[in-house]
Amino acid sequence: MVFDPTEHPHRRCNPLLNEWVLVSPHRAKRPWQGQVEKPQVNTNQAHDPECYLCSGNTRINGEVNPDYSGTFVFNNDFAALMQDTPSSAQSNDDLFTLQAARGTSRVICFSPAHNLTLPELSLPELEGVIQTWQEQVADLSNEYAWVQVFENKGAAMGCSNPHPHGQVWANDFVPNEVAKAEANQRKYFAKHGSALLLDYAQRESADGSRTVVETEHWIAVVPYWAAWPFETLLLPKFKCARLVDVNAQQKADLAIAIKKLTSRYDNLFQCSFPYSMGWHWAPNNLDETEHWQVHAHFYPPLLRSATVRKFMVGYEMLAEPQRDLTPEQAAEKLQQVSDVHYNDILN
Amino acid sequence: MVFDPTEHPHRRCNPLLNEWVLVSPHRAKRPWQGQVEKPQVNTNQAHDPECYLCSGNTRINGEVNPDYSGTFVFNNDFAALMQDTPSSAQSNDDLFTLQAARGTSRVICFSPAHNLTLPELSLPELEGVIQTWQEQVADLSNEYAWVQVFENKGAAMGCSNPHPHGQVWANDFVPNEVAKAEANQRKYFAKHGSALLLDYAQRESADGSRTVVETEHWIAVVPYWAAWPFETLLLPKFKCARLVDVNAQQKADLAIAIKKLTSRYDNLFQCSFPYSMGWHWAPNNLDETEHWQVHAHFYPPLLRSATVRKFMVGYEMLAEPQRDLTPEQAAEKLQQVSDVHYNDILN
Ligand SMILES: O=P(O)(O)O[C@H]1O[C@H](CO)[C@@H](O)[C@H](O)[C@H]1O
Ligand SMILES: O=P(O)(O)O[C@H]1O[C@H](CO)[C@@H](O)[C@H](O)[C@H]1O
Repeated sequence: MVFDPTEHPHRRCNPLLNEWVLVSPHRAKRPWQGQVEKPQVNTNQAHDPECYLCSGNTRINGEVNPDYSGTFVFNNDFAALMQDTPSSAQSNDDLFTLQAARGTSRVICFSPAHNLTLPELSLPELEGVIQTWQEQVADLSNEYAWVQVFENKGAAMGCSNPHPHGQVWANDFVPNEVAKAEANQRKYFAKHGSALLLDYAQRESADGSRTVVETEHWIAVVPYWAAWPFETLLLPKFKCARLVDVNAQQKADLAIAIKKLTSRYDNLFQCSFPYSMGWHWAPNNLDETEHWQVHAHFYPPLLRSATVRKFMVGYEMLAEPQRDLTPEQAAEKLQQVSDVHYNDILN
Repeated sequence: MVFDPTEHPHRRCNPLLNEWVLVSPHRAKRPWQGQVEKPQVNTNQAHDPECYLCSGNTRINGEVNPDYSGTFVFNNDFAALMQDTPSSAQSNDDLFTLQAARGTSRVICFSPAHNLTLPELSLPELEGVIQTWQEQVADLSNEYAWVQVFENKGAAMGCSNPHPHGQVWANDFVPNEVAKAEANQRKYFAKHGSALLLDYAQRESADGSRTVVETEHWIAVVPYWAAWPFETLLLPKFKCARLVDVNAQQKADLAIAIKKLTSRYDNLFQCSFPYSMGWHWAPNNLDETEHWQVHAHFYPPLLRSATVRKFMVGYEMLAEPQRDLTPEQAAEKLQQVSDVHYNDILN
C-alpha cells in the first residue's frame, strides 16, 4: 500500500505556530447524532429598537449611540482590560507567575444596517471598515505593544448580537499566539533570508489547489495546516509587515478579497457563516519587521451543514487539533460555490 | 492605587505550556444575551434500545455489544486513526511538512447503566474504570509512543451519546500538548532538581485556597493558571510518572477523588456538568521520567449557570485565553457545594 494523503491519516505542521494538526480524511463519513446549531435567522429590519449597536439607541451604561453612517467605534462597556491597571510586583516564582495587564477594548460597528454582514456591504463600505481598522490601530499603537483586531460572528462563536461589528483589544504585552508567530517567522527568515508568508503566498498562488480567492494583491487559501474544517488564511502577495502599511490601492483590492471570501463562506451552506476572524502583524515593539507579513485568520466552526459543527474538544484540547476532510477537499468545496453572495444574486 | 489580583486585569503563566492566560476579574458582571445551552436532560432509563453503547444492542457496523457488566471496550467504528497507515516519504519542506500517522481509537463504556455518569458510579465501579484505563494503556503502550485517555461529556462538548463513556486514542507520535508539557517539566527539573507538579501539589496543598478536593494521595485544584472558568487539575501527592504505576491503594483513593470532584461539578449548577477530561503522563519514548508527574485535566465550559458557557473565540483564538473570574473565586464556589452528588442525597 502506498501512502495517499487523500485517504490516509497524517499530520501536517503549522509553521507559524510550530504545532501539528492530525488529518483523518477517511473519517468524513462518520454519522452525527450530537448537538445541532440553530442557523442564524436573518432579519429584514435595518434598525432594531432593542439593539445596543444600532444608531440612536441607548446602551446599557446609559450612553446614546450617535446617528452614524459608515462605521462607529466606542469603548466596550464590559472591557476585559483596563487602561489604569496599577503595576504589580515582579514575579520570581516559576510556579506562580503573575503580571499586571493594561489595555483597552473597543467595539467597531461595521455599518448602521442591523441586518447586513461583511459580504453584504458594498465595496466602499468594506473599505471604510478596513480604514477604521487602520485608524484604530494607528491610534492605539502609540501606547500599546499589541492591538488585536477581530470579529466574532454568529451565536456559535459566542456572538450575542447579529448587528455587524468587530472588536479591538489593545494590550501592553504580546499575547501567546502572536509571540509564537513572531518567533517562527523570525526563525524562518534567519534560515531562508525571506519572509515565511511571502514565500508561502507565492507557492500557493502557483499551485492553486488550496486557493479560495485571489485578487491582484491578495490571496486567501485553506492553509496546508488548517485546523478548522474551512479555515482560511488571507495574505498579501506583496511585502507588507502591518495593516497600517497597506496603501489605498491595496486596500480597495483587500475589500474585494474580503467580500469574495465571506460570500463564498455564506454560499457554502446557504447561511450566514459563523466564524472568528482577526489580524496578525508585526508587534509594535520590534526594531526589524522584515520577517513579518500581515495576515488574517478566519476560523469558522461549521463542518458539514449550517447546523453541524466541528467540536475542538477532548483529543483536540489534550493532544492536538484533528480534522476530517483535507484542506484541499475543503478548498475545492469553497471553489465550487460562487463568489457573489446569494443575497446579491436574489436582489 | 495598589495592584489587587481580585480586581485588576492580569496575566498568569501556565508553566506546563509556558503560555499565558488573561484574567479580568472585574468583568464578571457582564450581561449575557448570546447562545444558551440546553442542559442535559437526565433519563431514568438504565437501558435505551436506541443507544449504540448499551449492552446487547447492535452498532452501526452490525456488531452486537455483549451483555456486559462493569466496563466494555471496543474499537471506535469511526476512528480518526488507522493501524495500517503506510509510511510517507520524509518531508524536507519548511512550509509544507507532512508525516503519516499510525494509531488506533477505542471506546470505553464506563458502565452498562445508560443513565449514570462518573459521579453516580459506586467507588468499586469507578475503580473498575481506572483499572480499565490502566489495562488499555499497558496494552497500547507496547506499540505506540502516546496513548491519550479522555472523556467528552455533554452535548456542549461534542458528545453525541449520554451513555457514560470515554475514549482512548493511541498515536505513533507525541502530540503538541504533550510535547509542550514534556519540554517544560524537563526544563523545570533541570533547573530545580525536583518535579514541577510534585512541587506544585505540595504548595497547593499547603495553601488550600485553590483546592477543590484533597484525599490521602490526590489533590484537585483550580490551577493558578486555569483558562476555563472551572478548570481543574488532578494530581498525585506522591511521586508517580504514569497512570500504570498507580498501585491498588492509590487507585482506590483516586476513585474517591474523582467521585468527589465530579460531584462538586454537578452540584455547582445542579446539572450534569459538561467537560472534556483526560490524562497526561510521561510518553513511552522517554528514558528518564523523573521530571514527570501523571495528572488529569478537566476542561468544563460552563461559566455562570447550566445554560451559559464561556466561549473561547476571537481574542482567545487569536491572542490568548481570557477568563472573567479568578481561579481562587472559582475554587471558592466549588468548595461551597457538597462533595456528595445531589442524586445520592435525594436517593
Ligand atoms: O469521537 P466522537 O465522540 O464522535 O467525537 C468527538 O470527540 C472527538 C475527539 O475529541 C472530536 O474529534 C470530535 O470533534 C468530537 O465531536
Ligand atoms: O466581548 P463579547 O462579544 O461579549 O464576548 C465574546 O468575545 C470575547 C472575545 O473574543 C470572549 O472573551 C467571550 O468569551 C465571547 O463571548
